[in-house]
Amino acid sequence: MERVVAVLGRGVIPATTPILRADDLGAVRGDGVFETAHVRSGRPWLFDEHLDRMARSAARLDLDLPSRAELAGLADLLCAQWPADTEGALKLICTRGPEHGSGVTCFGTLTEVPDSTRAVRRTGLRLGTLNLGLAADARSAAPWLLGGAKTLSYAMNMACQRWAAAAGLDDVLWVSADGYLLEAPTSTLVWLEHGTLYTVPQATGILSGTTARWLLDHVDALGWHAGERMVRQDELERATGVWLTSSVRGIVAVRELDGVKLADPAHTDTLRDLLGFPA
Amino acid sequence: MERVVAVLGRGVIPATTPILRADDLGAVRGDGVFETAHVRSGRPWLFDEHLDRMARSAARLDLDLPSRAELAGLADLLCAQWPADTEGALKLICTRGPEHGSGVTCFGTLTEVPDSTRAVRRTGLRLGTLNLGLAADARSAAPWLLGGAKTLSYAMNMACQRWAAAAGLDDVLWVSADGYLLEAPTSTLVWLEHGTLYTVPQATGILSGTTARWLLDHVDALGWHAGERMVRQDELERATGVWLTSSVRGIVAVRELDGVKLADPAHTDTLRDLLGFPA
Repeated sequence: MERVVAVLGRGVIPATTPILRADDLGAVRGDGVFETAHVRSGRPWLFDEHLDRMARSAARLDLDLPSRAELAGLADLLCAQWPADTEGALKLICTRGPEHGSGVTCFGTLTEVPDSTRAVRRTGLRLGTLNLGLAADARSAAPWLLGGAKTLSYAMNMACQRWAAAAGLDDVLWVSADGYLLEAPTSTLVWLEHGTLYTVPQATGILSGTTARWLLDHVDALGWHAGERMVRQDELERATGVWLTSSVRGIVAVRELDGVKLADPAHTDTLRDLLGFPA
Repeated sequence: MERVVAVLGRGVIPATTPILRADDLGAVRGDGVFETAHVRSGRPWLFDEHLDRMARSAARLDLDLPSRAELAGLADLLCAQWPADTEGALKLICTRGPEHGSGVTCFGTLTEVPDSTRAVRRTGLRLGTLNLGLAADARSAAPWLLGGAKTLSYAMNMACQRWAAAAGLDDVLWVSADGYLLEAPTSTLVWLEHGTLYTVPQATGILSGTTARWLLDHVDALGWHAGERMVRQDELERATGVWLTSSVRGIVAVRELDGVKLADPAHTDTLRDLLGFPA
């Protein structure tokens, strides 16, 4: 499937049509927010949760979003063009709009989930850690650092993923200056330990993962508990299973961290099935 | 003067014409670089230095820029539309271009220097400090944090300036987690102490200020020395003069820092004249 693009107030447009002006603050300052949702059976999964998170991100940026109904209408327009049997990645983007302008620029895109993404659900990931420079509690008292906000300013996230590729790795895991594992540039860390599935506390300023949140809210179906705690690398190396979750990739096993092989996670298929992602 | 816009390969276009696609990585990931230069007598000042810095930023992002001649040609196109007697701000922006695309998107804008910017050259600034969360040496060993690169990912910079406005201040000064003053979101810190004009060392990961660099290279004309050193807030409060420099604002006196009045800097006019900015 070709990429489908729609702009709020204009409807579906050709994918190659330019939509942002030279003075749009999203385009020239990364000043805006976005969300990515998994489209399955022709509908975005956990869409309410994504809209909730977009609203939280926008609040941290003092950005006035269009109404939920308008954002949902944009998603509807895109999904109406999409075959129900094709996995899709729906992105909604709201920028602060033109400088000295009258408000946000809002648009959405819907693309097919790439084969490489589907493949990694089966093969798992080799990760390296990268120091984020921030102490784990640095962002909790410093809202201007925009912890927990999913902004368009992802140059550093992208640089970290290029660093991984250059090192022959699949992705990175950020570690705080004081030695706690935080998150990956575009996904959330979860791990299983003594029957509890954990993720990292929000107070560290990580992005609240919609997939991870849903999973932790539903692992009682597997007879597990859900928890949040700070974790160091040596603890992760002893965990029963370590995964990254994200909206389009779903859940992916971490096979190796800084060259150390992690436990072969027996439960990846079970967790992926619970989340409703195809293998 | 109205904003003038030009796109590499297309020439001058109407300022309201959209130029970036929905999948342009600059627009949706802040993945690109920019420069802003002061246009005086119809030409961008320190343009070579700006192109040098853009090249360094691009190298840190593994971004292939157009040739210097192409970037200079873009600036020429813009300046050809500009009256020689009007102060301008020239921005050059290069994004990574469309996802899975063939290369960078490069464009430029030229706008009039706002009255508010000119006014602050005379009135000076009231600043507050904000903790950046990073130790002063955190970025020197962590190139993935993109220290020293002028990227499009400025959401946090903009958030800090909104924080200042909400607090009734003009701007902020970032302080490292270990208590050293670093830079402002869009300008460089310089201060005078015992006949030496100082700025903060590059090893802290601050952006190399083109205006500050030029000034330090020319203060021998005033009989002063030039230096770089780490500085704490209490030391700054005892300095002979404290300023922020940036390409369009030029040099502006810092009158107050976290509510503490700083020395009335006698040399602001002298330094502004040396830099060739009008009062």
